[in-house]
Amino acid sequence: MDSEEKSLNESQIIKIARELASKEGVPLRVPLGDDAAVVDSPKGLLLLTTDMICEGVHFDLRDHSYYQVGWKGAVAAVSDIAAMGGEPLYCLVAMGFGSSPQEDEVLELFSGIQDALRRFGGSLVGGDTTRSSSGLSLGVTVVGSAVGSRTVTRSGARIRDIIGVTGVLGRSVAGLFLLQREDEDLLRRFPGLVKAHLVPYARVGEGMILARLGVTAMEDISDGLTVELSHICEESRCGCLIDADRLPLSAEVRTAAVALGEDPLEWALGGGEDFELVFTCGESEFESIRGRIEESGTEVTAVGEIMEPERGLKLLEGNKEREIAGYGYEHFG
Amino acid sequence: MDSEEKSLNESQIIKIARELASKEGVPLRVPLGDDAAVVDSPKGLLLLTTDMICEGVHFDLRDHSYYQVGWKGAVAAVSDIAAMGGEPLYCLVAMGFGSSPQEDEVLELFSGIQDALRRFGGSLVGGDTTRSSSGLSLGVTVVGSAVGSRTVTRSGARIRDIIGVTGVLGRSVAGLFLLQREDEDLLRRFPGLVKAHLVPYARVGEGMILARLGVTAMEDISDGLTVELSHICEESRCGCLIDADRLPLSAEVRTAAVALGEDPLEWALGGGEDFELVFTCGESEFESIRGRIEESGTEVTAVGEIMEPERGLKLLEGNKEREIAGYGYEHFG
Repeated sequence: MDSEEKSLNESQIIKIARELASKEGVPLRVPLGDDAAVVDSPKGLLLLTTDMICEGVHFDLRDHSYYQVGWKGAVAAVSDIAAMGGEPLYCLVAMGFGSSPQEDEVLELFSGIQDALRRFGGSLVGGDTTRSSSGLSLGVTVVGSAVGSRTVTRSGARIRDIIGVTGVLGRSVAGLFLLQREDEDLLRRFPGLVKAHLVPYARVGEGMILARLGVTAMEDISDGLTVELSHICEESRCGCLIDADRLPLSAEVRTAAVALGEDPLEWALGGGEDFELVFTCGESEFESIRGRIEESGTEVTAVGEIMEPERGLKLLEGNKEREIAGYGYEHFG
Repeated sequence: MDSEEKSLNESQIIKIARELASKEGVPLRVPLGDDAAVVDSPKGLLLLTTDMICEGVHFDLRDHSYYQVGWKGAVAAVSDIAAMGGEPLYCLVAMGFGSSPQEDEVLELFSGIQDALRRFGGSLVGGDTTRSSSGLSLGVTVVGSAVGSRTVTRSGARIRDIIGVTGVLGRSVAGLFLLQREDEDLLRRFPGLVKAHLVPYARVGEGMILARLGVTAMEDISDGLTVELSHICEESRCGCLIDADRLPLSAEVRTAAVALGEDPLEWALGGGEDFELVFTCGESEFESIRGRIEESGTEVTAVGEIMEPERGLKLLEGNKEREIAGYGYEHFG
């Protein structure tokens, strides 16, 4: 491979990004690549979020292609907009490369970002490229707008609210464990779980519907259900009781757990990067909310209830209650 | 030092950021720390920029305090808004730490960011913290608004426009060379240059005035005058002639160059991170523009002229013209 000839400098990377943005018809007022992106300001409230993912911490380039790194970086940021019930509008990406990036790597990275944005909303409008002293790192910023000027925060949960979750839990962490085992047979048996880890989904459409339907609190499950619930309980000054039997674990996740000798309950409570939404709403509204979301093809499960703050965070297993703590991904934990 | 006791996890870092934002009276619609920041959308055009700086590439923690890293990261991003003639409004910061960050490090980092924003505009409204596989890295995103819906791009320079520069060139690179020499005497002789490297300024007020006064193209000097001019010439399809004798080099920069055995002209042409502005404007408007900017206490110098594209980028030294290329900081160069 004549790799030297294909390695790109910053201007060449910007040129690629500009062509991609132009092909996509991105609504830029100034061509991509100036000092700052110039876009129209939407009416109402702006949502701003940034997420950084680093090689060796959030992904391993032995498992992830550059496409998948781009996709995952974009999904992680877009998912934060989904968690507020908002709509992603614009995306900026800061890319740190350990060495001079190859053209195909840059194209793959952009392609993953743009495919994720095409799928979940938002246009790539700018960024920054730099050398990094370690491997690849990606900082993705997304600007979104609040739908109907309503945003759903972590602080609105009320005692006796139902706790709902979209989709299935533990898929991404199951995929991670499968990849780490480096066993080709296992990887072939559970392609859906591996894909859930490498190419996760953000629940943007679902988040917007949930916001319009008046859910009281919401978060995306990026660090694990327990961590997200602890945020909601802390900000809403309440406790919660989760029913272990109701946690949405697919047959595929359970089978993979058996094959790997792992506990699927731990995956459901602590598995990060599912990017499903956890929300709270009044008991009387839950069924109609579930119906509306399931119309869009995404299942919704009631997994527990918001309790008085004195109760703390509890898990009901059979008829025993125990504390849930120590699950989930705490950075610098 | 009992460093273990002071190291912070993510929630603790968010708590510090929330308290700081609350003290500053940041106009957040939702307390800092939710999935995304919620802010009011300004009217008109939005400017979006992101900048990543990494330990070992953009700064060395033996020279820079955490305060200075925070300051410089914020200034680098804010300066891109200045370069469009815009006003910084909101700032997000993604922080990657090589190890569990200490409380005083985090406080210093935030303090540097906030002092820079207080000085040049913008409010810290959110961010992300994560482990990084190498040292400290900082991704700073700034959202700004266009003043009077006019933004100044790189593409508007016209043949025969005057090329103007704010302030003095080569101060930051002089400071970098002084720091690298590790000679206490030299550092004591040129404290202003060391400070220019460690705690640079962004020309936000000047940029807004220049935009209102109708300059035709503008950039901030982050990678060196030659690099920025090559951007303007490429985007505006023109050439330029720079007069070496007119490049604004202070006596301090010249003296330091002599002391270090370096060429001050190279510093002026290639030195990055001065964050001065380079702009173009009609010949007849230059003097009144200079007058208006100098009222704010910042000097402005005419350093050359925009030429036909066939001329390329030329430097006039005495009465000889030569190509200027190969100066300035090209990432992955």
